This record gives sequence, structure tokens and C-alpha cells, in this order.
Amino acid sequence: MEKKIKVRNPRTGKIDYFITPLTDTEIAEQCNNLRQSQIDWQLDIHQRIEVLQNWKKVLIAEKDALIQALVEDTGRIRESVMEVDGVISSLERWCKLAPELCLTEEKNTAIPFIQIKSQLVPYSLVGVISPWNFPLLLSLIDAIPALLAGCAVIIKPSEITPRFIQPLVKTIESVSQLNRVLSFMQGAGETGKIIIENVDAICFTGSVSTGKKVSQLAAKQLIPVFLELGGKDPAIVLESANLEQATLAILWGSVINAGQSCLSIERIYVAESIHDYFVDKLVDKASQLSLNYSDIKNGEIGPIISAKQATIIAEHLLDATEKGAIINCGGQVEELNGGFWCRPTVLTRVNRNMKIITEETFGPVMPIMTFTSKEEAIKLANDSVYGLSAAVFAASQTEALEVAQQIEAGAISINDAGLTALINEGEKNSFKSSGLGGSRMGAASMARFFRKKALLTKTQPVVDPWWY
Amino acid sequence: MEKKIKVRNPRTGKIDYFITPLTDTEIAEQCNNLRQSQIDWQLDIHQRIEVLQNWKKVLIAEKDALIQALVEDTGRIRESVMEVDGVISSLERWCKLAPELCLTEEKNTAIPFIQIKSQLVPYSLVGVISPWNFPLLLSLIDAIPALLAGCAVIIKPSEITPRFIQPLVKTIESVSQLNRVLSFMQGAGETGKIIIENVDAICFTGSVSTGKKVSQLAAKQLIPVFLELGGKDPAIVLESANLEQATLAILWGSVINAGQSCLSIERIYVAESIHDYFVDKLVDKASQLSLNYSDIKNGEIGPIISAKQATIIAEHLLDATEKGAIINCGGQVEELNGGFWCRPTVLTRVNRNMKIITEETFGPVMPIMTFTSKEEAIKLANDSVYGLSAAVFAASQTEALEVAQQIEAGAISINDAGLTALINEGEKNSFKSSGLGGSRMGAASMARFFRKKALLTKTQPVVDPWWY
Repeated sequence: MEKKIKVRNPRTGKIDYFITPLTDTEIAEQCNNLRQSQIDWQLDIHQRIEVLQNWKKVLIAEKDALIQALVEDTGRIRESVMEVDGVISSLERWCKLAPELCLTEEKNTAIPFIQIKSQLVPYSLVGVISPWNFPLLLSLIDAIPALLAGCAVIIKPSEITPRFIQPLVKTIESVSQLNRVLSFMQGAGETGKIIIENVDAICFTGSVSTGKKVSQLAAKQLIPVFLELGGKDPAIVLESANLEQATLAILWGSVINAGQSCLSIERIYVAESIHDYFVDKLVDKASQLSLNYSDIKNGEIGPIISAKQATIIAEHLLDATEKGAIINCGGQVEELNGGFWCRPTVLTRVNRNMKIITEETFGPVMPIMTFTSKEEAIKLANDSVYGLSAAVFAASQTEALEVAQQIEAGAISINDAGLTALINEGEKNSFKSSGLGGSRMGAASMARFFRKKALLTKTQPVVDPWWY
Repeated sequence: MEKKIKVRNPRTGKIDYFITPLTDTEIAEQCNNLRQSQIDWQLDIHQRIEVLQNWKKVLIAEKDALIQALVEDTGRIRESVMEVDGVISSLERWCKLAPELCLTEEKNTAIPFIQIKSQLVPYSLVGVISPWNFPLLLSLIDAIPALLAGCAVIIKPSEITPRFIQPLVKTIESVSQLNRVLSFMQGAGETGKIIIENVDAICFTGSVSTGKKVSQLAAKQLIPVFLELGGKDPAIVLESANLEQATLAILWGSVINAGQSCLSIERIYVAESIHDYFVDKLVDKASQLSLNYSDIKNGEIGPIISAKQATIIAEHLLDATEKGAIINCGGQVEELNGGFWCRPTVLTRVNRNMKIITEETFGPVMPIMTFTSKEEAIKLANDSVYGLSAAVFAASQTEALEVAQQIEAGAISINDAGLTALINEGEKNSFKSSGLGGSRMGAASMARFFRKKALLTKTQPVVDPWWY
């Protein structure tokens, strides 16, 4: 029997919640049950849609309980509401898209009398290992298309934010057909490992280092892996950009969820000629935001959820200032009554020898560097092991697109930031260390969970083989 | 400096060829050169097509030299001719398909004023590690779509059949633009490992055990892997099947290239009522085929190319007969003047405790089991760690398709065998241990080599973020 895992409260630093992982045998048994139920689940897309629509109704009814648990998990309200709303609208969207994505085709081939019928065969059991920054949203972002594809799904959310699981499981249990094919597991790394060993495909959202471990475990079993890992998203602000708009978008893209988002803006490259003006504007806006401490209902910036992450942010800031960076606003991780907070921080005089430019910070920190040509801007933006997303600001779309097309990242927002979080149609693949496997956005997201089968039918007798 | 690798002649058993692998540094340097050349190569699909069409002309001119080298490598003629013809027609087909597959799209999103433009970004350098059974064809099956996608490609064919490399490289060198982005490496496992460490995506065709190693090395670097591994393809012959046609197709599917094909038929399940008649017919046909020894130009069955594989076939046959299997024709690996040959072998009274039913044999061996219901036939066919392809024979397409749809394999031939080798439009994914990653057949084959990028453009000012 694995022992209890202690869970820290992000606002107080106190251990006020515990989870008890299942044993290896119990997990394997649960996986077997899910596989059994999947045999019928895969048969009828319209039934699957009906079941998920029923679940949606329950989620709407239980919205408050879910939000409350997420607020406990993460210490912030607005993003918790966004998470629940996001899941509900995502269910709606996927239910609309799914029937078309399950259609198979039939076509003739280059060889007379031979036809191909395609068949889509869902993986029996898909595993999902999800992170603590958007605990609900990211536990279901891969699970919903997988369920609609006809897979059973087992999910292990992060052990740092597990409080939402209980109210969520309650909603699942109230839809018995769903409850048979969707299961949530509490636990940490060991539970994740056992899940990987028991599934047919694995989705992981989290750090590069854990992503490599997940990927290697999956490789040993020859199961497909879909990784959505870290980012160090650059924003390029060209000389012609509307700076009012650019600073607004970049600030939003940096500080939402206190920077705890893989696609938050973490590097800013500004044309030298507009640097000072840009910094003034950004600092001015950033200074207007405040922490949601001590009243959770006041202030825009929530706590740093993970204590370990708070240490990393502090370390990156210290490293930067020691190497000569200037803090224009914010600038430190504050411990307040046991929780950790970081005010929106604008840094100048930074360079690529600082961790704040090369490693993922995952905090509301905006380091700014300058460039004197578009070529230099592109080079700086591409000077990273990451390639998740990016943003480009310019007066004209044409000018911005020309730069965007040369940036090594899966999604580029033009004259805005983080659009890929809002626009679900934007199929994209991660570049470099930011991920692996098919896109989780767009129709491709569901296609990941099918194996395509070719049924080659012949309407004429066998042609004599070559030796006759 | 790595030492010379000795190469055995499949018809004489003599060491009559040597290869010298490059050093790690030389390989890394070559990879860097390829990457540099890829920067321009990716720019223009029409130029890439022109270059590959020029190469096609050279291949046609050098056909005889290529065939001759392949004959030395493999000890058989007909399949060598098929390999060269197959590559030439594949170049023609891909050049026709490629322009459409490089097109990007532009569409509106659910959010007003936001548009998505897609961009396809090829991986810079794709590695290919290919096997000895169809040395030329399988070294280029992934490389051609990768080149057309705009990637540079480095290929390491098997060290068991390297003689074709020299005349092939001569054709590549005569097309200078191609020579800058396509490189062949001689070498064994160590060379393969260094290649994996220097590329952005890796394609491997070969055994499950090596496939797992390749997959784990790739996972460590977070690069995508496309594996086409072993098979133990079943053929199901229903009671209603035309046995003349079925035996003809199954024999062809089993003995072509002396069974040295991942998608050769290696298990036959026949309705009990027709078993004896089926066996008689199959044995009758099988007995008419002869070895291409001592005259390579006479006889249909070539040598077992790899000495190690000859040992495995002999071991499977011994294991089967020791456990009670009956040999109806063929039945042993014969050593003739230093080479190994195996006549078409029909086995009855086999069961699933025999290696001949569970492990990949890679020889012209046809073990036959019976079934009394369709459910049993499906269960037997699915009782394997492999899931590459399969065949189903019945009087009507409807009857065959009903069974085919329940078989866990990527491609099913109806009333024929191995159609997936002939029909390039049939997109398929491998099931279970038979492979991983996107389909190498159909348009999907080229899509594997692109990362999809979403350019999210906004035509209206930034909407105020949530805190305003």
C-alpha cells in the first residue's frame, strides 16, 4: 500500500489535503475494466455524443463545486472559472465536430478492380498525465477527443493540485456509461509510470525532463506518445508596431495565471529605436496590476501554485540581477502568510547568458532585449531549445507574417499573444523540445487516437503472380 | 577509425565484400553539411520535383548496374528488377502528388476577425535506417516523400546487403543538387546510433527488438520516430472461398522473396470443412516451385539472404516438428555450396505453442490451422503480438469484409495477399508491435515530414483582456 501524499495549499503553504494512490495491482485492474467497457463504447459515435452531452449538463449543474475546488487547488478565481467554462465549451465543440471526423472513405486505386475502404480503429485505452497549472482544463484537453474517438481514458492529474478530482469524479459517476470508460487516478510519478505500462497510447503535458522519461517508457512498449512540454515563447515587437496594443497583449500573455502557462510570453525582443518608450508603457501597465493577496477576490495576480516553481522563479531573478539585469517593476518572489506571489516583473539589460532568457521561468516575468534588424530579431527568437509558440507585432499583417514565417514554433499570434489558447481550429505541432506527436489543436487532435486501417478489396480474380 | 565490416555473399556464404563505416565525427560533419543544404532545398517544391525527375532519368539509365548489385546482395533476380522498377515508379508517383501535398490553407475561426494561415515546415534532416530484405526499395520508401517534403535525408542501409550503395550513390552524385541533400552511409548498428543522434526525425524498418532501441534513443532526444517492424500476417480462408484463387494468392504472399518480407503470409487459418482440400491444392502448387540454385536464372525461390535468419527458420521448423507438426512439402533449410535455401514449406497439425505460429519466421513457410466458426478465426488471427497486415478469402466481399473489420492489423487484403505492397494509396497504421508513427502509405506518408504551424492573424485591435 503506497503511503499518503501530502498536498500543500498554495495560499497558506500549509499541508491541508492528502491523497492516497492506488496500488499497482489496483491500477492494472482498473485499466482492464476500462478496456472491457471500451469494446461497446467504440461502436456508436452518436451514443458517445449523447453521453458526453449528458455529462456536460451535469458539469453545468456542478459548476460551483468544481470552481471552488479549483480555487483551493490554485489560489486564484478568474482562471478557475475560465477552466470550467473552457471544458464545457470544448465538450460542445467536440460533440459537433466528432461525427464528421469519424467518417471513413472509400476510393478506387491506380490498379483496376481494386478498391480501398478505410476503417478507423480507436486505441483501446488512452492514458493522460496532466499538470498543475490548469488542473481541470489540461486533464481533459486530450481526454475529450479521445473519448469521442471511441477510446477509454485513464487520467492522472498532478499531485500538486488534486482537489478538483473529487467533485469532477462525482459528475462522471452520475453518467454511468461515461463512468465505465473514464477514470481519474490520484497519485504522483509512480502512479503515472504504472499507467503508462497499462495503456495503448499516452498523452503528457508537463516539463521537458519528465516528458523525456514518459517518452522513453512509451518507447519501450512501442506505444504512441503525445507530449506538450515547456515553452519559452518569444514576442517580437517591430518598429512599426502599435505599442499600446503590443504592451497590452504582451502583458496579458505574460501574467495570466501568474505566468504559469506553457505558452506565456517569456522573452520580449523590441526594436532598439522604440525600446525606451515600449518599456515605459509596459511598466506603466504592469504596475497597475496587484496580487490577489490577502483578499482572493481583489487583485489580478494569483499565487505561484508550486513551491518548487517559486524557488525556480526566484533563482532566475537572482541570476539575472547578479549578471546585470535591471528590474523596472516587480522583481521578487514574496512569501506572504506561507504562500508565494510574484508581481509582474519587467527586466531590461538582459542577455542570453541569463537563465531568464534560456530556461522556462513559468512566472509573470518579462525580460526585454533589443534588436536592430528583422534578421537579428528572428535569430534571437529562434535561439532557444523550445519552440512552442510566439507572437509578432507590426503595423501591417504582411510585415508581421514575413517575420512569423521564419520563427521555429508551432503557433504564432500576429498582433496579439496566446491566441492559440483561444482558437481551437489552429492545428500546430511543437518544434524542438516543446513537444512531440500529432497536434492537440484542430481536427488532428481526434485523429491521433485512431489507427487507420486499409481494407483492400478486389472485384476481379487474382492476377497470376509473376512466376506464371 | 572503425574497422572494416565483412559482408557475406548469400549464394556462396563467402566473405567477398567489405565496408568501412565513417567515424562519429565524419557522420556528424556530413549531417551538418546536409542541414546547411536543406535551407535552400526546402524553398521550392517545383525545383525539388525537377531534381528528382532528373534523378529518375539517371536511375533508368543505370538500371542494369543497380540490378546487378542487388542481385549480388540478395542472390535473386526477379525481386531485384522489381525493386528498381518500384523505385522509379514511386519517384514518378510522388512527383505527381507532391505539389498538392505542399499546399497550405487559410481559414476563418470561430472568433470574429481572427484568421488562421497554415504553414508546413519540413524537418531539417531525416534519418533512415533500412533492412536487408528489399535493400533498395526500403532504403528509399521513406526517403523519397521526405525529400519532396523539403527535408535533407541521410540513409544507412543494412550492413548485410550494402553492394547496391555504390552504384546508387553514383546516380545521386550525377545530380548535384540532390547530392547535397541526400547521403548514404555504410555501416552497422553503431553508425545507426550516431545517425539517430544527429537527425530531427528517424525512420526505421526492421526487427521489433532493434525498433525498440531506435525508439528509445529517439525518445531521449524528443525526435519523432516512424517504425515499420515485424509481422506475422494471418490469412483466413472461409468455407465459401474460391480455393483455386486462395491457394494461388497465399502461396504468392508467402514465398515471394523467399518469405523475406514483413508482410508475407506466415499463418493460415482454414475452415475445418475445407482443410484437406485446401492443403492438397496448396501443396500441389508449392511443389511446382523450385530453388534458383544452382542456376540463378532458373527457379523461383532465392536464397535466405541473412545467415542468422536461416538459423531462425531452421529453429522454427525443428521446434514445430518436435511438437508434432507434419511437413507436407519442403521443410528444411538446405545448405548448398555455402548458401542457404528453403523450399516452400506447408505445415499442418500446428498449434500456438509453436514458434512457427507466434514468432516471425521470415521464410517461405505456411503453417495451417483450422477453425470452426468465424469468431474463432478472428480470435486466432488476433492472437499475436504483431498487427501489420492480413488477408481474408470468401465468396463474397461482404462476408470477407465482416471478418476483415475485426482483425487487428493495418491493411487487410480481401481475396488476395500482400495488396498493400502494390497499392500505394492505402493509408494504414501498424497495430501492436508491428510499428509506430504515421502511415508510410498514402498521402500521410509525406505529411509525416512536416511540422504544421498555425499563423493566427488578427484584423482588429486587441480585445481588452479580462481584467479591464
